[in-house]
Amino acid sequence: MSTELETLSRERSLDLLAGVPVGRLVFTQRALPRVVPVSFILDDGEILIRTGETSTLAAGVRGTVVAFEVDHFDLTHRNGWSVTVTGRAREETDEVELGRLRTLPLWPWADGLREHFIKVSVEFVEGRRLGAVSV
Amino acid sequence: MSTELETLSRERSLDLLAGVPVGRLVFTQRALPRVVPVSFILDDGEILIRTGETSTLAAGVRGTVVAFEVDHFDLTHRNGWSVTVTGRAREETDEVELGRLRTLPLWPWADGLREHFIKVSVEFVEGRRLGAVSV
Repeated sequence: MSTELETLSRERSLDLLAGVPVGRLVFTQRALPRVVPVSFILDDGEILIRTGETSTLAAGVRGTVVAFEVDHFDLTHRNGWSVTVTGRAREETDEVELGRLRTLPLWPWADGLREHFIKVSVEFVEGRRLGAVSV
Repeated sequence: MSTELETLSRERSLDLLAGVPVGRLVFTQRALPRVVPVSFILDDGEILIRTGETSTLAAGVRGTVVAFEVDHFDLTHRNGWSVTVTGRAREETDEVELGRLRTLPLWPWADGLREHFIKVSVEFVEGRRLGAVSV
Protein backbone atom coordinates (compact mmCIF):
# COMPACT_ATOMS: atom_id res chain seq x y z
CA MET A 1 0.00 0.00 0.00
CA SER A 2 1.23 3.42 -0.90
CA THR A 3 -0.06 6.89 -0.26
CA GLU A 4 -0.31 9.92 -2.44
CA LEU A 5 -1.21 13.58 -2.25
CA GLU A 6 -4.02 15.05 -4.29
CA THR A 7 -4.44 18.77 -4.78
CA LEU A 8 -8.00 19.94 -4.18
CA SER A 9 -9.84 22.66 -6.06
CA ARG A 10 -10.57 25.95 -4.35
CA GLU A 11 -14.28 25.14 -4.28
CA ARG A 12 -13.79 21.69 -2.77
CA SER A 13 -11.29 23.06 -0.26
CA LEU A 14 -13.73 25.70 0.96
CA ASP A 15 -16.51 23.09 1.20
CA LEU A 16 -14.31 20.99 3.47
CA LEU A 17 -13.29 24.02 5.49
CA ALA A 18 -16.90 25.02 6.04
CA GLY A 19 -17.68 21.61 7.50
CA VAL A 20 -15.49 21.81 10.59
CA PRO A 21 -15.95 24.09 13.60
CA VAL A 22 -12.35 24.51 14.77
CA GLY A 23 -9.32 25.78 12.89
CA ARG A 24 -5.91 27.17 13.68
CA LEU A 25 -4.99 30.79 13.22
CA VAL A 26 -1.33 31.21 12.32
CA PHE A 27 0.46 34.52 12.50
CA THR A 28 3.73 36.17 13.34
CA GLN A 29 4.09 37.99 16.64
CA ARG A 30 7.28 39.70 17.72
CA ALA A 31 9.05 37.88 14.89
CA LEU A 32 7.97 34.48 16.23
CA PRO A 33 5.49 32.07 14.64
CA ARG A 34 2.26 31.75 16.63
CA VAL A 35 -0.61 29.31 16.26
CA VAL A 36 -3.90 29.43 18.17
CA PRO A 37 -6.87 27.05 17.81
CA VAL A 38 -10.15 28.94 17.39
CA SER A 39 -13.77 28.23 16.58
CA PHE A 40 -15.02 29.83 13.36
CA ILE A 41 -17.62 29.94 10.63
CA LEU A 42 -17.56 31.06 7.02
CA ASP A 43 -19.59 34.28 6.84
CA ASP A 44 -20.14 36.10 3.57
CA GLY A 45 -17.05 34.50 2.06
CA GLU A 46 -14.78 35.38 4.96
CA ILE A 47 -13.51 33.39 7.92
CA LEU A 48 -15.14 34.75 11.05
CA ILE A 49 -13.51 34.01 14.39
CA ARG A 50 -15.04 34.79 17.75
CA THR A 51 -12.53 34.72 20.53
CA GLY A 52 -12.83 35.36 24.22
CA GLU A 53 -9.09 35.81 24.42
CA THR A 54 -7.68 38.98 25.76
CA SER A 55 -6.46 41.43 23.21
CA THR A 56 -3.26 39.48 22.54
CA LEU A 57 -4.75 37.59 19.64
CA ALA A 58 -6.62 40.56 18.21
CA ALA A 59 -3.54 42.75 18.46
CA GLY A 60 -1.32 40.07 16.99
CA VAL A 61 -3.29 39.77 13.79
CA ARG A 62 -4.26 43.39 13.27
CA GLY A 63 -4.17 44.06 9.54
CA THR A 64 -1.53 41.41 8.94
CA VAL A 65 -1.38 38.47 6.58
CA VAL A 66 -2.26 35.28 8.43
CA ALA A 67 -2.78 31.64 7.61
CA PHE A 68 -5.78 29.65 8.74
CA GLU A 69 -5.64 25.88 8.74
CA VAL A 70 -8.20 23.10 9.13
CA ASP A 71 -7.63 19.40 8.71
CA HIS A 72 -9.06 16.00 9.39
CA PHE A 73 -7.13 12.76 9.61
CA ASP A 74 -8.30 9.18 9.87
CA LEU A 75 -5.50 7.49 11.73
CA THR A 76 -6.79 3.98 11.11
CA HIS A 77 -6.92 4.27 7.35
CA ARG A 78 -4.07 6.75 7.09
CA ASN A 79 -5.96 9.25 5.01
CA GLY A 80 -7.27 12.73 5.50
CA TRP A 81 -7.18 16.24 4.18
CA SER A 82 -5.96 19.70 5.06
CA VAL A 83 -6.93 23.15 3.84
CA THR A 84 -4.93 26.31 4.42
CA VAL A 85 -6.22 29.78 3.65
CA THR A 86 -3.91 32.76 3.45
CA GLY A 87 -5.49 36.17 3.85
CA ARG A 88 -5.52 39.43 5.69
CA ALA A 89 -6.92 39.56 9.23
CA ARG A 90 -8.67 42.44 10.86
CA GLU A 91 -10.70 42.90 14.00
CA GLU A 92 -14.27 44.06 13.42
CA THR A 93 -14.99 47.18 15.43
CA ASP A 94 -18.08 48.61 13.71
CA GLU A 95 -20.88 48.45 16.26
CA VAL A 96 -23.63 47.82 13.71
CA GLU A 97 -21.73 44.94 12.17
CA LEU A 98 -20.84 43.61 15.64
CA GLY A 99 -24.53 43.50 16.41
CA ARG A 100 -25.09 41.27 13.41
CA LEU A 101 -22.10 39.07 14.19
CA ARG A 102 -23.33 38.43 17.73
CA THR A 103 -26.48 36.83 16.30
CA LEU A 104 -24.54 34.25 14.28
CA PRO A 105 -24.22 30.65 15.52
CA LEU A 106 -20.64 31.07 16.60
CA TRP A 107 -19.48 30.89 20.17
CA PRO A 108 -16.04 31.08 21.64
CA TRP A 109 -14.95 28.01 23.55
CA ALA A 110 -13.62 30.04 26.41
CA ASP A 111 -15.18 32.92 28.23
CA GLY A 112 -13.38 36.17 28.42
CA LEU A 113 -13.97 39.61 29.76
CA ARG A 114 -14.12 40.98 26.25
CA GLU A 115 -15.11 39.38 23.03
CA HIS A 116 -13.37 39.94 19.76
CA PHE A 117 -14.53 39.18 16.25
CA ILE A 118 -11.74 38.67 13.76
CA LYS A 119 -12.32 38.40 10.03
CA VAL A 120 -9.87 36.78 7.64
CA SER A 121 -10.25 37.39 3.92
CA VAL A 122 -10.00 34.27 1.78
CA GLU A 123 -7.30 35.06 -0.75
CA PHE A 124 -5.06 32.08 -1.38
CA VAL A 125 -6.51 28.60 -0.79
CA GLU A 126 -4.44 25.42 -0.67
CA GLY A 127 -6.20 22.09 -0.22
CA ARG A 128 -4.70 18.64 -0.19
CA ARG A 129 -6.14 15.20 0.26
CA LEU A 130 -3.97 12.34 1.39
CA GLY A 131 -5.32 8.90 0.73
CA ALA A 132 -4.04 5.38 0.96
CA VAL A 133 -4.06 3.75 -2.45
CA SER A 134 -3.31 0.20 -3.51
CA VAL A 135 -0.29 -0.41 -5.70
CA MET B 1 -22.74 26.13 31.48
CA SER B 2 -19.57 28.10 31.07
CA THR B 3 -16.13 27.26 29.84
CA GLU B 4 -12.71 28.11 31.08
CA LEU B 5 -9.09 27.82 30.10
CA GLU B 6 -6.58 25.98 32.25
CA THR B 7 -2.85 26.34 31.76
CA LEU B 8 -1.06 23.01 31.68
CA SER B 9 2.38 22.24 33.09
CA ARG B 10 5.28 21.62 30.73
CA GLU B 11 5.36 17.97 31.76
CA ARG B 12 1.64 17.42 31.21
CA SER B 13 1.78 19.30 27.91
CA LEU B 14 4.57 17.08 26.60
CA ASP B 15 2.69 13.96 27.75
CA LEU B 16 -0.32 15.05 25.71
CA LEU B 17 1.84 15.95 22.73
CA ALA B 18 3.51 12.54 22.77
CA GLY B 19 0.12 10.83 22.56
CA VAL B 20 -0.92 12.05 19.12
CA PRO B 21 0.67 11.14 15.77
CA VAL B 22 -0.05 14.29 13.74
CA GLY B 23 0.87 17.90 14.43
CA ARG B 24 1.20 21.13 12.52
CA LEU B 25 4.52 22.71 11.73
CA VAL B 26 4.28 26.50 11.62
CA PHE B 27 6.95 28.70 10.10
CA THR B 28 7.54 31.81 8.10
CA GLN B 29 8.41 31.53 4.43
CA ARG B 30 9.01 34.52 2.19
CA ALA B 31 7.54 36.70 4.95
CA LEU B 32 4.28 34.72 4.93
CA PRO B 33 2.97 32.43 7.66
CA ARG B 34 2.95 28.77 6.62
CA VAL B 35 1.40 25.75 8.33
CA VAL B 36 1.83 22.12 7.25
CA PRO B 37 0.37 19.02 8.95
CA VAL B 38 3.01 16.36 9.55
CA SER B 39 3.38 13.04 11.33
CA PHE B 40 5.91 13.05 14.16
CA ILE B 41 7.25 11.38 17.26
CA LEU B 42 9.13 12.63 20.29
CA ASP B 43 12.69 11.32 20.02
CA ASP B 44 15.30 12.00 22.67
CA GLY B 45 13.41 15.09 23.83
CA GLU B 46 13.05 16.56 20.36
CA ILE B 47 10.19 16.59 17.89
CA LEU B 48 11.13 14.39 14.96
CA ILE B 49 9.27 14.87 11.68
CA ARG B 50 9.61 12.58 8.68
CA THR B 51 8.31 14.15 5.54
CA GLY B 52 8.16 12.95 1.99
CA GLU B 53 7.64 16.50 0.80
CA THR B 54 10.01 17.99 -1.67
CA SER B 55 12.62 20.28 -0.25
CA THR B 56 10.15 23.16 0.21
CA LEU B 57 9.40 22.24 3.77
CA ALA B 58 12.95 21.37 4.70
CA ALA B 59 14.26 24.57 3.14
CA GLY B 60 11.55 26.65 4.78
CA VAL B 61 12.47 25.65 8.29
CA ARG B 62 16.23 25.47 7.97
CA GLY B 63 17.70 26.73 11.22
CA THR B 64 14.72 28.95 11.91
CA VAL B 65 12.46 29.29 14.92
CA VAL B 66 9.23 27.40 14.29
CA ALA B 67 6.09 26.53 16.22
CA PHE B 68 4.66 23.05 16.42
CA GLU B 69 1.06 22.56 17.44
CA VAL B 70 -1.06 19.57 18.44
CA ASP B 71 -4.60 19.61 19.75
CA HIS B 72 -7.64 17.50 20.41
CA PHE B 73 -11.20 18.75 20.68
CA ASP B 74 -14.37 16.98 21.71
CA LEU B 75 -17.05 18.83 19.79
CA THR B 76 -19.93 17.22 21.66
CA HIS B 77 -18.76 18.20 25.10
CA ARG B 78 -17.00 21.37 23.98
CA ASN B 79 -13.75 20.59 25.65
CA GLY B 80 -10.25 19.79 24.53
CA TRP B 81 -6.65 20.82 24.76
CA SER B 82 -3.87 22.28 22.69
CA VAL B 83 -0.11 22.28 23.07
CA THR B 84 2.29 24.52 21.18
CA VAL B 85 6.05 24.10 21.21
CA THR B 86 8.36 26.83 20.03
CA GLY B 87 11.87 25.78 19.07
CA ARG B 88 14.52 25.75 16.43
CA ALA B 89 14.17 23.47 13.40
CA ARG B 90 16.93 21.81 11.47
CA GLU B 91 17.10 19.08 8.89
CA GLU B 92 19.17 16.07 9.90
CA THR B 93 21.82 15.33 7.30
CA ASP B 94 24.27 13.13 9.20
CA GLU B 95 24.17 9.73 7.51
CA VAL B 96 24.82 7.75 10.69
CA GLU B 97 22.02 9.53 12.52
CA LEU B 98 19.74 9.17 9.47
CA GLY B 99 20.33 5.43 9.63
CA ARG B 100 19.05 5.40 13.20
CA LEU B 101 16.10 7.64 12.41
CA ARG B 102 14.95 5.37 9.57
CA THR B 103 14.52 2.53 12.09
CA LEU B 104 12.10 4.52 14.24
CA PRO B 105 8.34 3.87 14.06
CA LEU B 106 7.64 7.02 12.10
CA TRP B 107 6.39 7.03 8.54
CA PRO B 108 5.44 9.91 6.32
CA TRP B 109 1.85 9.86 5.12
CA ALA B 110 2.82 10.67 1.59
CA ASP B 111 5.49 9.15 -0.55
CA GLY B 112 8.11 11.35 -2.05
CA LEU B 113 11.20 10.98 -4.14
CA ARG B 114 13.32 12.06 -1.20
CA GLU B 115 12.73 11.79 2.47
CA HIS B 116 13.59 14.46 4.97
CA PHE B 117 13.96 14.22 8.70
CA ILE B 118 13.42 17.49 10.54
CA LYS B 119 14.14 17.95 14.22
CA VAL B 120 12.60 20.67 16.35
CA SER B 121 14.12 21.46 19.73
CA VAL B 122 11.60 21.78 22.55
CA GLU B 123 12.30 25.17 24.06
CA PHE B 124 9.11 26.99 24.97
CA VAL B 125 6.02 24.88 25.75
CA GLU B 126 2.50 26.28 26.07
CA GLY B 127 -0.34 23.94 26.99
CA ARG B 128 -3.97 24.78 27.58
CA ARG B 129 -6.99 22.72 28.46
CA LEU B 130 -10.44 24.00 27.70
CA GLY B 131 -13.23 22.35 29.60
CA ALA B 132 -16.91 22.91 30.02
CA VAL B 133 -17.70 23.62 33.67
CA SER B 134 -20.99 24.11 35.45
CA VAL B 135 -21.72 27.50 36.92
